[in-house]
Amino acid sequence: MLDDDIDTESNPPLRVGVLGARGRMGIEVCKAVNAAEDMELVAMVDAGDWLFNVSDAGAEVVIDFTRPDVVMDNLHWCIDQGIHSVVGTSGFTPDRLEQLNTWLAPKPDLGVVIAPNFGIGAVLMMRFAQQAAKYFDSVEVIERHHPNKVDAPSGTAVRTAELIADARATAGMGAAPDATSQSLAGARGAEVEGVRVHSIRSAGSIAHQEVLFGATGETLVLKHDSTDRASFMPGVLLAARRVSDLPGLTFGIDTLLD
Amino acid sequence: MLDDDIDTESNPPLRVGVLGARGRMGIEVCKAVNAAEDMELVAMVDAGDWLFNVSDAGAEVVIDFTRPDVVMDNLHWCIDQGIHSVVGTSGFTPDRLEQLNTWLAPKPDLGVVIAPNFGIGAVLMMRFAQQAAKYFDSVEVIERHHPNKVDAPSGTAVRTAELIADARATAGMGAAPDATSQSLAGARGAEVEGVRVHSIRSAGSIAHQEVLFGATGETLVLKHDSTDRASFMPGVLLAARRVSDLPGLTFGIDTLLD
Amino acid sequence: MLDDDIDTESNPPLRVGVLGARGRMGIEVCKAVNAAEDMELVAMVDAGDWLFNVSDAGAEVVIDFTRPDVVMDNLHWCIDQGIHSVVGTSGFTPDRLEQLNTWLAPKPDLGVVIAPNFGIGAVLMMRFAQQAAKYFDSVEVIERHHPNKVDAPSGTAVRTAELIADARATAGMGAAPDATSQSLAGARGAEVEGVRVHSIRSAGSIAHQEVLFGATGETLVLKHDSTDRASFMPGVLLAARRVSDLPGLTFGIDTLLD
Amino acid sequence: MLDDDIDTESNPPLRVGVLGARGRMGIEVCKAVNAAEDMELVAMVDAGDWLFNVSDAGAEVVIDFTRPDVVMDNLHWCIDQGIHSVVGTSGFTPDRLEQLNTWLAPKPDLGVVIAPNFGIGAVLMMRFAQQAAKYFDSVEVIERHHPNKVDAPSGTAVRTAELIADARATAGMGAAPDATSQSLAGARGAEVEGVRVHSIRSAGSIAHQEVLFGATGETLVLKHDSTDRASFMPGVLLAARRVSDLPGLTFGIDTLLD
Repeated sequence: MLDDDIDTESNPPLRVGVLGARGRMGIEVCKAVNAAEDMELVAMVDAGDWLFNVSDAGAEVVIDFTRPDVVMDNLHWCIDQGIHSVVGTSGFTPDRLEQLNTWLAPKPDLGVVIAPNFGIGAVLMMRFAQQAAKYFDSVEVIERHHPNKVDAPSGTAVRTAELIADARATAGMGAAPDATSQSLAGARGAEVEGVRVHSIRSAGSIAHQEVLFGATGETLVLKHDSTDRASFMPGVLLAARRVSDLPGLTFGIDTLLD
Repeated sequence: MLDDDIDTESNPPLRVGVLGARGRMGIEVCKAVNAAEDMELVAMVDAGDWLFNVSDAGAEVVIDFTRPDVVMDNLHWCIDQGIHSVVGTSGFTPDRLEQLNTWLAPKPDLGVVIAPNFGIGAVLMMRFAQQAAKYFDSVEVIERHHPNKVDAPSGTAVRTAELIADARATAGMGAAPDATSQSLAGARGAEVEGVRVHSIRSAGSIAHQEVLFGATGETLVLKHDSTDRASFMPGVLLAARRVSDLPGLTFGIDTLLD
Repeated sequence: MLDDDIDTESNPPLRVGVLGARGRMGIEVCKAVNAAEDMELVAMVDAGDWLFNVSDAGAEVVIDFTRPDVVMDNLHWCIDQGIHSVVGTSGFTPDRLEQLNTWLAPKPDLGVVIAPNFGIGAVLMMRFAQQAAKYFDSVEVIERHHPNKVDAPSGTAVRTAELIADARATAGMGAAPDATSQSLAGARGAEVEGVRVHSIRSAGSIAHQEVLFGATGETLVLKHDSTDRASFMPGVLLAARRVSDLPGLTFGIDTLLD
Repeated sequence: MLDDDIDTESNPPLRVGVLGARGRMGIEVCKAVNAAEDMELVAMVDAGDWLFNVSDAGAEVVIDFTRPDVVMDNLHWCIDQGIHSVVGTSGFTPDRLEQLNTWLAPKPDLGVVIAPNFGIGAVLMMRFAQQAAKYFDSVEVIERHHPNKVDAPSGTAVRTAELIADARATAGMGAAPDATSQSLAGARGAEVEGVRVHSIRSAGSIAHQEVLFGATGETLVLKHDSTDRASFMPGVLLAARRVSDLPGLTFGIDTLLD
């Protein structure tokens, strides 16, 4: 659907190289690039392969789903080569982002998009949560994942709670009403900057999140269900298409939507 | 709907007295008895009124929504008078139930039905949760109430978790799978006999509960929303109709359904 | 919560008159105005009362929840008197709106806000639905109401579907994918400008709506539950506070948010 | 979890053969049988293979996920050989079931279990729906599937509606309350024996169903989500374990639960 406004006749396809091409996400990315009419997959590189395959193949954009220990080297190389990059690898600390800005400074036309979550639905859920926050007295976040997940709450839930907390603070709102005086430990969830977050772990679940807003007489729920990592591909492709128009470092894909 | 199988032509209406008739629940009960074609409201008694109004009026059944400090006296009197009773007042300890059994012993035809929750939907939710428990590896309880509630989790959630825990133990099941190793305090909820329970408090909510069961590739959710205390009346009326056929003490209305 | 940024010390309270003050909504409005620290309820008028009570009391803003057959006369009078108005009465045709514009033309400082739905949650749901529409291949609207409702789908559901259809058309999107070839009549719902809408009618329900968006591997649901007409009051008060800064005719409260 | 009460020490494993072993479901079945400690996968047969591989390998139970055009021959052969069978293949007409009964008549110890849906969650949802039906004035079924599904409503939704309709009829209940007088065609869904059924088709969905019950002041929702065909395996294995104790023809796995 995001392809609909692409005029494939007049533009040559975007030349894309994939780093981490044999990983679980990399395989999905390769499939998605192949299926996109306005893109051409010109290089697939994984551990042990030469990065120069990417430049030799004339890649304009690199998509990197590798590992935290190699991603900085990959990006340094891409910036040197003048290749835009779209990055889903995790592990970006403020120090790393600053380092990237230093590398990018002499290349004013080059773009790097790094996102912790390329799922457009998840990004919209967070955006809407931020927008709704100031209109509701109460808000809680409930996330549900498969039982093999090691961290609770999920990173997306924590990020959502932080965005909501900021929006409430900006609007001068205090704590949500809560008369609880007798409570079993943990019943009211974890507190992230004053926002309650509940983590459910269940067989048969994949990755799900609800943000529940409440005011007198009404509730508004934003609910996202992710059932397949294919759901991240539209966001990855969108970033690949837009990165050349976004010089410098862009964190998160929220600004790419609209 | 529960009235449908009542043959109102051949039976005289059931004569009902209400104790606590001016309380919030009592008012609802009086309205419901009045509206039932097979019942007659013959006495409305509250603090300061004579209990003998009830027997003078020929009540066959008393419905008691009073307070823990007076309910035992009320029941003692009803049993003495040979009047069946249906009780929604809280505060019944094992000692109190034993006391009632002692009082009931010499009256083999008399019935007392005491229930912490007369909502048929809530009772069915608990019953189904018990039945489903042994078929799913994972189960968690999520309850949501208005922010003025003082206890967390709700009594119904605790009871539901206990019933599920019993059913799992009977089936020889161990703990639900959960790989969580890094957790913010409270994120994974409270533990009630090994079952995780999450309590949400939100403006705009009334009384809501979900039981989420999960197994590989599927989830089953039982969800109950109570939006008006009128929802308890079908259960109260059902108990009033059946109590004369249930000699002795009956706790909960589960056995009255079906 | 919306009161938080009001500096009640330095401003005199807003003088508000209510038309239709004895109707179901009017009673709620009077209560809400009374409870707002930055407002004073100066006149309550209903059928049979003099409108001049409102001007005599020095009302700056009138809130009108009356009936389609009298609302135009009320508004004509308010405009003549130079009183801003906030209107929740239904029945505004394009002709009526044009008439209002004519009446307002010579009064460039006067504001009239008319809204079919003052629920902030419902308005946000519609706004978010519009924003999300272009990112998802599939979308359906499911609304659920009490069984006494005479129309299906609800006005809000139809409006939501229209907004979504517009957003999809603007983005150049075609129909949602649907391989249905054997169908029982009605199973796939009603079609509103190509968007499927399903209407559920159920005892125990009040006013509920879900917008379900789907793309490969993910769904995003926007869900609004309205359980009390008190939920409309924050929107009504917001409009009353802002109407003097909104000269001319404003339809819907969407533009008042943010 | 269903394995927990199996005493694997004292019993030799159940010898299982799979027909249709290279089909999508057959592959899952083989994996599940392999993973079950109390079973041994002794034969995998698909089109072109000899059925006698199954008997030569000493299979006690056959699991058949083949095609309607071959399943009757397969079953005839299994019955001749004295092998129990568990069948997930579709296409069983009343005529076919009668034929099977004829074949089974001379073999009083032999069992055949045929089920249109081996999902335990789906079966429990249907069972609970039947049990709850008589307690609620209102009921509607909402099913949601991927957009490639050709029929609407789903077979499970139709079956659920029929079971509910039967339960309501038995309880002497009339139609659910519904004041709808102005309706867009299809808005109120399809009618299956008087029960409204709504079919949603959406990208990102797999197989989902909700049964919504409503009475004054409360709703009870039974919700089933199936996200992977692995969810059918516990039901298939359960049937394989029990079929030798169920002589004759058993349709559906409902009677195997509990």
